[in-house]
Amino acid sequence: MKTLIKNIDILTMDEKLGQIQGGCILIEDDEIVFAGSEADLGEGADYDKIEDGRGMLAIPGLVNTHTHTAMSLFRGYANDLPLMKWLEELIWPAEDRLEEADAYWLSLLAIAEMIRGGVTAFADMYMFMEQTAQAVLDSGVRGVLARGLQGPDGKSHNRLEENRILWENWHGEGDDRIQVMVGPHAVYTCGPSYLEEVGDLARKLGTGIHIHLSETRQEVDNCIKEYGKSPVRHLYDLGLLDGHILAAHCVHLSSEDLDILRDKDVRIAHCPASNLKLGSGIAPVREMLDRGITVSLGTDGAASNNNLSIIKEMALAALISKGAEEDATLVPASIALEMATSYGARALGLEDTIGSLSPGKKADIVLVDTHKPHYQPRGDWATHLVYSGHSGDVDSVWVNGRKLMEKKELLTIDLDRIYSEVENIYNKVMGTGNG
Amino acid sequence: MKTLIKNIDILTMDEKLGQIQGGCILIEDDEIVFAGSEADLGEGADYDKIEDGRGMLAIPGLVNTHTHTAMSLFRGYANDLPLMKWLEELIWPAEDRLEEADAYWLSLLAIAEMIRGGVTAFADMYMFMEQTAQAVLDSGVRGVLARGLQGPDGKSHNRLEENRILWENWHGEGDDRIQVMVGPHAVYTCGPSYLEEVGDLARKLGTGIHIHLSETRQEVDNCIKEYGKSPVRHLYDLGLLDGHILAAHCVHLSSEDLDILRDKDVRIAHCPASNLKLGSGIAPVREMLDRGITVSLGTDGAASNNNLSIIKEMALAALISKGAEEDATLVPASIALEMATSYGARALGLEDTIGSLSPGKKADIVLVDTHKPHYQPRGDWATHLVYSGHSGDVDSVWVNGRKLMEKKELLTIDLDRIYSEVENIYNKVMGTGNG
Repeated sequence: MKTLIKNIDILTMDEKLGQIQGGCILIEDDEIVFAGSEADLGEGADYDKIEDGRGMLAIPGLVNTHTHTAMSLFRGYANDLPLMKWLEELIWPAEDRLEEADAYWLSLLAIAEMIRGGVTAFADMYMFMEQTAQAVLDSGVRGVLARGLQGPDGKSHNRLEENRILWENWHGEGDDRIQVMVGPHAVYTCGPSYLEEVGDLARKLGTGIHIHLSETRQEVDNCIKEYGKSPVRHLYDLGLLDGHILAAHCVHLSSEDLDILRDKDVRIAHCPASNLKLGSGIAPVREMLDRGITVSLGTDGAASNNNLSIIKEMALAALISKGAEEDATLVPASIALEMATSYGARALGLEDTIGSLSPGKKADIVLVDTHKPHYQPRGDWATHLVYSGHSGDVDSVWVNGRKLMEKKELLTIDLDRIYSEVENIYNKVMGTGNG
Repeated sequence: MKTLIKNIDILTMDEKLGQIQGGCILIEDDEIVFAGSEADLGEGADYDKIEDGRGMLAIPGLVNTHTHTAMSLFRGYANDLPLMKWLEELIWPAEDRLEEADAYWLSLLAIAEMIRGGVTAFADMYMFMEQTAQAVLDSGVRGVLARGLQGPDGKSHNRLEENRILWENWHGEGDDRIQVMVGPHAVYTCGPSYLEEVGDLARKLGTGIHIHLSETRQEVDNCIKEYGKSPVRHLYDLGLLDGHILAAHCVHLSSEDLDILRDKDVRIAHCPASNLKLGSGIAPVREMLDRGITVSLGTDGAASNNNLSIIKEMALAALISKGAEEDATLVPASIALEMATSYGARALGLEDTIGSLSPGKKADIVLVDTHKPHYQPRGDWATHLVYSGHSGDVDSVWVNGRKLMEKKELLTIDLDRIYSEVENIYNKVMGTGNG
């Protein structure tokens, strides 16, 4: 099956191709076979179906490298609190009332929001991950999933075993749309011996590690108090940074930490909205980029953001560094868009699969409707998208060549069913009041 | 003519009324006569027309207290540059190629974007303000307009005279939708004698002053070098702060400055996106709010934002203070929404007219479509709107009881005509390349 999307402007996020006006994309089954001008496609090209994208901008599917989809339940619950108070007093007690089957609907709610915002791939770390995997499979999106791990305690071996079983059950499923990583929560919830077990499992499975790292000043201070070194150095000394590491937040870093992250090719999930909202701080993005560290974007969970829009994160990433350092030249729009696409793909270890609209890559494609006042006058699309755009501009979405949204209508997800299931879960877990 | 909007949730932004579930609003001609629960409306209430707002949240029209609508032409032009370089090397030369009649279409483009984002009132300061006034009149929105003033130079008396004529021609026009203020650009573009002339004109007309104030570190440093005091103190000593003052930006303030702003009841247009994007810095919003200073929200022009979404500014205002000061309790969502509504109204001197959904106020009403994943689970609407919402959620808009947008369709503005006019202006002023 070959589909031609024509009459579109394109940001390929592939340096060889750049910005194309009046171009087209040819998809064959799950792959991109051509992206460029219609003239270059040639007259001999054949296809089974034409989609007219007039007024649309095509970009690679956006990549959300750090979220907790099932936490969509906690959107708007417990605001304006610092991280530890928020976790200990509100989120963790509420989580105890969650049941496994709930996570399917909660993940679907988050996936629905992400697809509507042009997110085609995400990395998740949480409990009940089998349910999330099922939601990824059913919805058609791409997910890199990890069982959230804490320990050692009476259940920590079970959790590790759940992560292993998750990998056995799901790694490579859904035509490779599902990948499984290992998910130690953080240095303040995982002891050194447990982290070593986690590292062993990741090596054994040949997969990566997804972890929260140096998110708050308190985390760093406590780590220094307990282990005499920063969280980054602590992980380094435990041998945890030797494989593929996806480290979320990375707000409070020393110069030595930054050098370690560069030397070990740790990939960062920069989560500007969550870092601001929880009062965690502003990450040293300039220092990361200067060192050539891969900086991608994560929304974190809906509980601490409270949305799952990577378009918003792009704007925040571009704006905050400029404002905090009083330097308007930092993190231009083009880099913010790289963070959300090609760098995001690399953060997930999927740089050969997704992240740009290049021949041979999977057809994860987003059409943005630019026939709107905030995209006028027409000009540099990356700038307009990053500084003016919002999730409501996303019109159509493909993942692996399958269309998941058309003219803002989700094709694989029944929203009304989700709203009703989530309302029932909400009433069960939280009572009828909010917050 | 009486219209009942029913089946809506309401955030009145009036402390007596608060958040209402399943309520209604009764409009008579240009005024709100009731906002509350249907039970309280009573069965005897009569009306000519019913609007069903099921799934919608009603909020007061949002107020954008600092923008330059005709600068919509420069959206996406010249990014990632600091303020003075951006003004001197790119914006001012391009402005020289603008013609007066262009400003009508450029202002309409900005007004279209604002209405679509739920903004029903804005404060503008720029040249060609007669054209902007006509665009406000024709579109049905509410505008507080000032002729941008610089001097003394050969044309500065003419500019002052244009501001006076603007007031004569337009103040109170459009059923009072149009108000005229006096618009000295800033202390670095207006000399002391000229500022005194400006103050005289404002007093004579009995109207307020709209000015950029303490936007950059450079502005403050230069003012201290030239006058031996900060811009705030400089204006104070010139007697410029004695009337109604709308001061935009206010990023770099000393403790004495803050006390002066409080003592003189200066109203602030906090412009977080523009302040970040131009690398100007992060305004001391906590210190302003602690002193009881009126802090409203402005987008600044599309040239330096690059959008005109007050919903985005609410999110930024709520997030940035938290992140910069590492305190998650600062600027909660409810305060951000006050900044965009009731505080905005007060900033414009319109607190008796707009800013809340209260009986007796003008019917400037926005319906937000909350039947979307990012508003689930249903809960505290202010939190959802500020942290999860975007301009694309706005469904319907009334100003002065007249409907300007219905189900996302603008009723008073022909968008395609605007796009075509703006493209012609763009090609004339900027050539065909962008940036």
